[in-house]
Amino acid sequence: MFLRSIEWLGDRVKIIDQTALPHELRYRELRTLDEVVEAIKAMRVRGAPLIGVTAALGLALVATGCRGMDRGEVLARLREAAEELRRARPTAVNLSWAVERVLAAAERADDPAGAAVREAVAMMEEDVRVNMEMARVGQELIEDGDVILTHCNTGSLATVSVGTALGLIIYAHKVGKRIHVYFTETRPVLQGSRLTAYELLHAGVPATLICDSAVGHVMRTKGVKKVFVGADRVLADGTTYNKIGTYQIAVLAKELGIPFYVVAPTSSFDLSRRPGDVVIEERPDEEVTTISGVRIAPEGVKAYNPAFDETPPEYITAFVTERGIIRPPFEKNIPRVVGGG
Amino acid sequence: MFLRSIEWLGDRVKIIDQTALPHELRYRELRTLDEVVEAIKAMRVRGAPLIGVTAALGLALVATGCRGMDRGEVLARLREAAEELRRARPTAVNLSWAVERVLAAAERADDPAGAAVREAVAMMEEDVRVNMEMARVGQELIEDGDVILTHCNTGSLATVSVGTALGLIIYAHKVGKRIHVYFTETRPVLQGSRLTAYELLHAGVPATLICDSAVGHVMRTKGVKKVFVGADRVLADGTTYNKIGTYQIAVLAKELGIPFYVVAPTSSFDLSRRPGDVVIEERPDEEVTTISGVRIAPEGVKAYNPAFDETPPEYITAFVTERGIIRPPFEKNIPRVVGGG
Repeated sequence: MFLRSIEWLGDRVKIIDQTALPHELRYRELRTLDEVVEAIKAMRVRGAPLIGVTAALGLALVATGCRGMDRGEVLARLREAAEELRRARPTAVNLSWAVERVLAAAERADDPAGAAVREAVAMMEEDVRVNMEMARVGQELIEDGDVILTHCNTGSLATVSVGTALGLIIYAHKVGKRIHVYFTETRPVLQGSRLTAYELLHAGVPATLICDSAVGHVMRTKGVKKVFVGADRVLADGTTYNKIGTYQIAVLAKELGIPFYVVAPTSSFDLSRRPGDVVIEERPDEEVTTISGVRIAPEGVKAYNPAFDETPPEYITAFVTERGIIRPPFEKNIPRVVGGG
Repeated sequence: MFLRSIEWLGDRVKIIDQTALPHELRYRELRTLDEVVEAIKAMRVRGAPLIGVTAALGLALVATGCRGMDRGEVLARLREAAEELRRARPTAVNLSWAVERVLAAAERADDPAGAAVREAVAMMEEDVRVNMEMARVGQELIEDGDVILTHCNTGSLATVSVGTALGLIIYAHKVGKRIHVYFTETRPVLQGSRLTAYELLHAGVPATLICDSAVGHVMRTKGVKKVFVGADRVLADGTTYNKIGTYQIAVLAKELGIPFYVVAPTSSFDLSRRPGDVVIEERPDEEVTTISGVRIAPEGVKAYNPAFDETPPEYITAFVTERGIIRPPFEKNIPRVVGGG
C-alpha cells in the first residue's frame, strides 16, 4: 500500500536508493557498516526519520557480526561504529539520537548484540506504526472531493514508510476519498518534483506539480480546500519549523480562509525551546545558483539559501499527531497531549 | 549608466543576444528581416516592450531596402514583412501593436519608407524616455538604507533600456542611495537568476538571489522595507497581471505591513477590460519538469504552469507611471491619470 524505504533482512539492510529517483526505483542491499555510512553520506537515504533508522540498523549490522564475542568487546565495537555513523552527516539530529538510543539499549542488556538488533528493529517498526496512526487520525480531516496542497516531501521516502503529511493524503485516497493534490516542486533541492511526484504517481493519486511561485495563484483559483505540511520541529506554543516556503503558504492559507494543518509525530515536538532559540540552517549558494550541475546564475552573484523557515502559531489550524489532533489554544493543548500525563 | 538592449545603426539593428546571458554579454547585428524574425523566435530578445521595438525596427530594415521604389510597392513589402513578424511569436501583444503602429505611420505618409523608419526609431526612443521618467519619479519612494525585494526581470533586458521596476531600483543606487536588493530566481524560466542577477551585478548594486520559496521568510526576517514589481497589464480598478508569484508577494507584503509598488508605463494600462476578462496564459509542462534540458520530475507527472497571476488592488500601495505616482482610490485616480484629459 505504501512504499517501504528500508527493511532489515536479518544480516543485511535493504534500501531504496533515492539517488536513482525519480527515474528508477532501484533497491540496494547494505551488508557492512561502510556501506551504511556511504549510503547516508551519498544521500541514497535522506529525510531525518529515515537517516536515523538507517544508522540504527547500521549498528544492528555491526551487532550481528559480534555474535560469540564477550560483552565488553561488543560494546566497544558498537561505540566505535556509533562514532563513525555520527560523522556521516554531522548536522542530522535524528542520526545522533537514533545511535544513542541503540547504544543505550545495548549498554543496559546482558546480551548487548541482541539488544542492539532488537532496539534498531523496534525503532524502525515504531516509525511505521506512528505514521500509520497519524494517517488514520488525520485522514478524517479530508472530505470526498477535496483539493489539497502540500509542500516538500513528507512521504514514505522521508521515513521508513507511510510518511507524515503525504502519508495522510495518500491514505485518504486509498480509503476511497476522491481528492486532487497540488504539490510544490520545492526549490532549491526539488524534493517535490523528484520525490513527492514519484510517490503520488506510485500511489495513483490524481496530482499536479506546480512551481513555488504558483502556490498563491493556485490556492486562490483552483479551489484548494486544505493544506497539509510536515514539520522538522514544533515548539510548545505551536511555532513550527519546516522546509523553506512553509511560512508563506501558511500566510496565504489564512488570507484565503483555507485550513492549514501540520502533521508531525509527538517525537518532533520540542517543549524545551522558545522561538528565537532555534537556528535556521543556511545551506550552500550552489543549491540556488546551479541545478543538476548546470550553472543558472552569473558568476559572482550572492545567494541566501535558508533550509527552513518559522511559521507562527496564529497561521496554523491544527496539528495532527499519533495521539490525536491538537487544536488551539496550543500553549495549553500541546503540553497536555505531547508532554504526557 | 544602463544596459542598452537594442540600437538602430541606420542599416542594421544591434541587439544583446540574451541567449548567451548570464554567462556572456554578446552583441549581434541583424541585417535582414529573416535575422530579425529568427532573433525573436529564438528569444535572443524577450520581454514584451523589447519584442515590440525589435519588430518595429525589423520593418525599418525592410523600409531601408525599399528606397527608390514606388509608394504602393513599399507599402506592399511592409505589409508582407509585418505578417511575417506577427507570426514570429503569435501571442505577444506588444509585437502586433508595434507592427500596426509602424504600418499605420507608413500608410499615412507620402514617403512610407522614411515614415516607417522614423516611427520605429521614435518608438524605441520613447521606451527609453518613458522608463527614465518612471525611474526619476519612482526613486523618490526609496530611502537611504532601504532593503528592497523585486521579482522576475523588469530591467534594461526586458525593454530598450532602463526598465521599469528594476530600472527605478538601479537608478536609486546610481543617485547615491545605499540599498540592498533581494531578488527571486523566478521559476520556471529563471528570469531572476539569469537576467536580473546580471543587471544588478553590471550596475554594482548590492544584491542577493533567493528562491521563490524564500520570499516570505526573507520579507519577515531581513528588514525588507519596500517591494517593487512590474506589470504586464493593469486594469482601471488597479487589478494587476504580472509574472506568476506576484500575487503571493503582494499578500505577504500586506500581512507584514510592507509597501507594495507596481511600476508600469501608462501604455500597460488597459481601461477597457475587467477582472475575469483577462485570460492567464498557461505554458508548457516542460518548463516545470525540466531545467536546462535536464529532466527533474518523473515521466508521467502532470504540471500546471501559469505564466502570470492576478493581484487584486487592495494589496497594492501605489502605481509608479511616467506621469506620476497613482495612489488609491485607484478606480478614480487611474482613469484620471492614464485616461488623459
